[in-house]
Amino acid sequence: MTFKTVALAAALFAAAGVAKAQAQAPDPAQLQANAAALRDQALKGSAAYPFLRDLTTEIGERLAGSEKEHLAAQWAVARLKAMGFQNVHIESFPVPGWTRGEERAELISPSVQKLNVTSLGNAGATPPEGVEAPVALFHTYADMLAQPVGSLSGKIVVVTQPMVRAQDGSGYGSLAVMRFMGAAEAEKRGALAYLVRSLSTSDSRLPHTGATDFPPGMAPIPAGALSVPDAEQLDRLSVGGRPLRMRLVLTPTFKPGATADTVVADVVGRERPDEVVLIGGHLDSWDLGTGAIDDGAGAAITTAAAKLIADMPHAPRRTVRLALFGAEEINFAGPAFAAVRSAAEQSHYVVAAECDFGAEPVYAIALPGASAKTPYGAMLAEAIAPLPAYVDRAPARGGGEDIAPLGPHVPLASLQQDGTHYFDIHHSADDTLDKVDPQRMDKAVAAWVAFTYLAADSDVDFRVKAPL
Amino acid sequence: MTFKTVALAAALFAAAGVAKAQAQAPDPAQLQANAAALRDQALKGSAAYPFLRDLTTEIGERLAGSEKEHLAAQWAVARLKAMGFQNVHIESFPVPGWTRGEERAELISPSVQKLNVTSLGNAGATPPEGVEAPVALFHTYADMLAQPVGSLSGKIVVVTQPMVRAQDGSGYGSLAVMRFMGAAEAEKRGALAYLVRSLSTSDSRLPHTGATDFPPGMAPIPAGALSVPDAEQLDRLSVGGRPLRMRLVLTPTFKPGATADTVVADVVGRERPDEVVLIGGHLDSWDLGTGAIDDGAGAAITTAAAKLIADMPHAPRRTVRLALFGAEEINFAGPAFAAVRSAAEQSHYVVAAECDFGAEPVYAIALPGASAKTPYGAMLAEAIAPLPAYVDRAPARGGGEDIAPLGPHVPLASLQQDGTHYFDIHHSADDTLDKVDPQRMDKAVAAWVAFTYLAADSDVDFRVKAPL
Repeated sequence: MTFKTVALAAALFAAAGVAKAQAQAPDPAQLQANAAALRDQALKGSAAYPFLRDLTTEIGERLAGSEKEHLAAQWAVARLKAMGFQNVHIESFPVPGWTRGEERAELISPSVQKLNVTSLGNAGATPPEGVEAPVALFHTYADMLAQPVGSLSGKIVVVTQPMVRAQDGSGYGSLAVMRFMGAAEAEKRGALAYLVRSLSTSDSRLPHTGATDFPPGMAPIPAGALSVPDAEQLDRLSVGGRPLRMRLVLTPTFKPGATADTVVADVVGRERPDEVVLIGGHLDSWDLGTGAIDDGAGAAITTAAAKLIADMPHAPRRTVRLALFGAEEINFAGPAFAAVRSAAEQSHYVVAAECDFGAEPVYAIALPGASAKTPYGAMLAEAIAPLPAYVDRAPARGGGEDIAPLGPHVPLASLQQDGTHYFDIHHSADDTLDKVDPQRMDKAVAAWVAFTYLAADSDVDFRVKAPL
Repeated sequence: MTFKTVALAAALFAAAGVAKAQAQAPDPAQLQANAAALRDQALKGSAAYPFLRDLTTEIGERLAGSEKEHLAAQWAVARLKAMGFQNVHIESFPVPGWTRGEERAELISPSVQKLNVTSLGNAGATPPEGVEAPVALFHTYADMLAQPVGSLSGKIVVVTQPMVRAQDGSGYGSLAVMRFMGAAEAEKRGALAYLVRSLSTSDSRLPHTGATDFPPGMAPIPAGALSVPDAEQLDRLSVGGRPLRMRLVLTPTFKPGATADTVVADVVGRERPDEVVLIGGHLDSWDLGTGAIDDGAGAAITTAAAKLIADMPHAPRRTVRLALFGAEEINFAGPAFAAVRSAAEQSHYVVAAECDFGAEPVYAIALPGASAKTPYGAMLAEAIAPLPAYVDRAPARGGGEDIAPLGPHVPLASLQQDGTHYFDIHHSADDTLDKVDPQRMDKAVAAWVAFTYLAADSDVDFRVKAPL
């Protein structure tokens, strides 16, 4: 513990009414008291906002595989070392190195009008001068899928299905396939290019990007997102089947040999360091905004929660491992992280949870299997009730792109943040620091530190079926 | 009245409980009843939304002097003729023909970051490859003005003063000089280019454009607006006097020989057609959005109010003249409109009022001089009270850019719309149809038709000092 100012931390926790952790078997009353003290400490002002402010201000956007993503990883290493974390290191892995180019769209007929468009990640490029073609417009994704193979030949396919606002993000989950698979599906049907209405709940003219995917062997066609008002303008202009014609310029490129960096750091457990509670967020972001809510906030919240635990007079029994993933947006970081950890190592992981849903408070925590009904579940419920938040009676259903590959070996938990407004700015140029309220973000830190501390300093086993 | 379906209109007003207008002296009770019926007719659904929807959908943006602005004028002529207006015609006048070019900005140090910028109208251009220079950042406009002449030589001057949200737009009025005169003031001090924080009350990454001005003989320097989050990012990065360096590309051009079109239409008065009640909005818009709230809405609201009056079984005693101005944003339409009307002609104008503050309800009407205390003021107050809206006890202080040049000869009124959220999207790409609520816009039409009808069918004289 040479890395931290023990005296200062001890004084802090004494002031907060936290007694020294017991050396032997976990004492439930002590665990509960410590969790409450950590929660309250978070609410008084955690390290989350300074971390997020400096990341988004000094670095800005951090597209996976870009120079700025590497700068962010180096910045995070220095920051985490300065904060007193142990075993701080970078794990690099290959990524496609997709890089945005020019992007312009213009309706040619029935009226010349500029359209606000942005390229989707992994999408292909038009020639530099663009393409001009008739539009095949569909109001739902299902309408597009119903078209026969080859029937959209030579067309710019546009799908304008609106996304539904939902607190838990299920409105996005139900429609993301329109963006993620739509370009490939349109290409199968002959499309020259593919545009979707932004997966957005706002009425901004800023389009929302995000990854699209092509099966192996399929050359990516140009694909992009229109802003919501632009998609609605096309809906209006096409009433009665009026033909539309569009010019589209999208010129992204791929950078062979690109890599991205995941940053890993520990608070080493004092009794069973091989038993790991894994938490984290992702450090990479889309390139349009500065990645404040997606996912600087998740990196900041989990870093701040781990920092509160690191500052306790005694480390918890188990290790708290912080992973700041380097390529969530294109889903390369999770597989890379899992791949370098053997199944045997993963079998010692207590639980994994990822924070990747903005900077708003956590309102519910879903635990693995029937863990809500264990003593751990009851302690956690008591710790987070004042925020207020609850332990969900239903089990967690996955936990995020980066930890999903651990799922076969590691129990996953899900700390649910309020996402009612998340998709107003998600993946758009509007994802900037000014959208984050430090006090509300600290409520998320409070839930995260209670969840993490209780898992790390108790002997909870999320693999054991809970007593009913 | 061959131009309208008299039978239909008569049936409509019979249904609305409006008796035939009296042929002789104005009957106050009849005026009041007619004003109430017109108000209620507006609230049931006016022509405003269809007008606005079709203008912004079929034409889109309408920059003064552009091809699309001419298309909008031709569209409006056809629309107003189809709606039954009389004397529909275009009045053309010369404008500078300023046209937006490329616009990009990038911070070079202390960190490479894209900045969202848009050029100001009338501003000059950088070379095609842009300029790169140190930034002189000022947190207030007064700080910049306090710099000696020549002291900002070779700098890109940035002013980041925030605008205050105010219902009546006075937050904009108090700071607009920062945009309108700032580029010239910076140039006097040696600046290479000038950027302001957008005059905006939103936190969108979309920058807000608007006109800037240079005195005769001064060559315009490049000038633009940064989005609010970008200005705040520069504020954070410059803390402690840390030097900033920026690359800026802004390449607007001027089109010699450009003209713009004001569209004029009448409801000819049945007794005193030379006495004119002038209402209108402006048809031109900035080129970033589709000019829905600025000022398609004002054109639509006043057109709808005039249309309700045109559809009465009898025209009002005086003429209602509708003017859809063609270059408000660069302030060329008002002087051109006044210039072709002699002082003698203008001396017969009863009153002029311009609608140019969005699509929200009118909450107050300010009349010329002490007119609030006349019988007209009392009738108007009664007509608009249910909306609710009131007649301001204070006199109108001007009435808009396009009618201001008439001010020496024509009394001006001001119908005040709620502008609390107007500057969230004003002059930005977010100014699109989806931001307009048809029912709320019809509340504005209701106030406008009451104001206009009572002025046109009574013998009110706004030039006479009112009895106290």
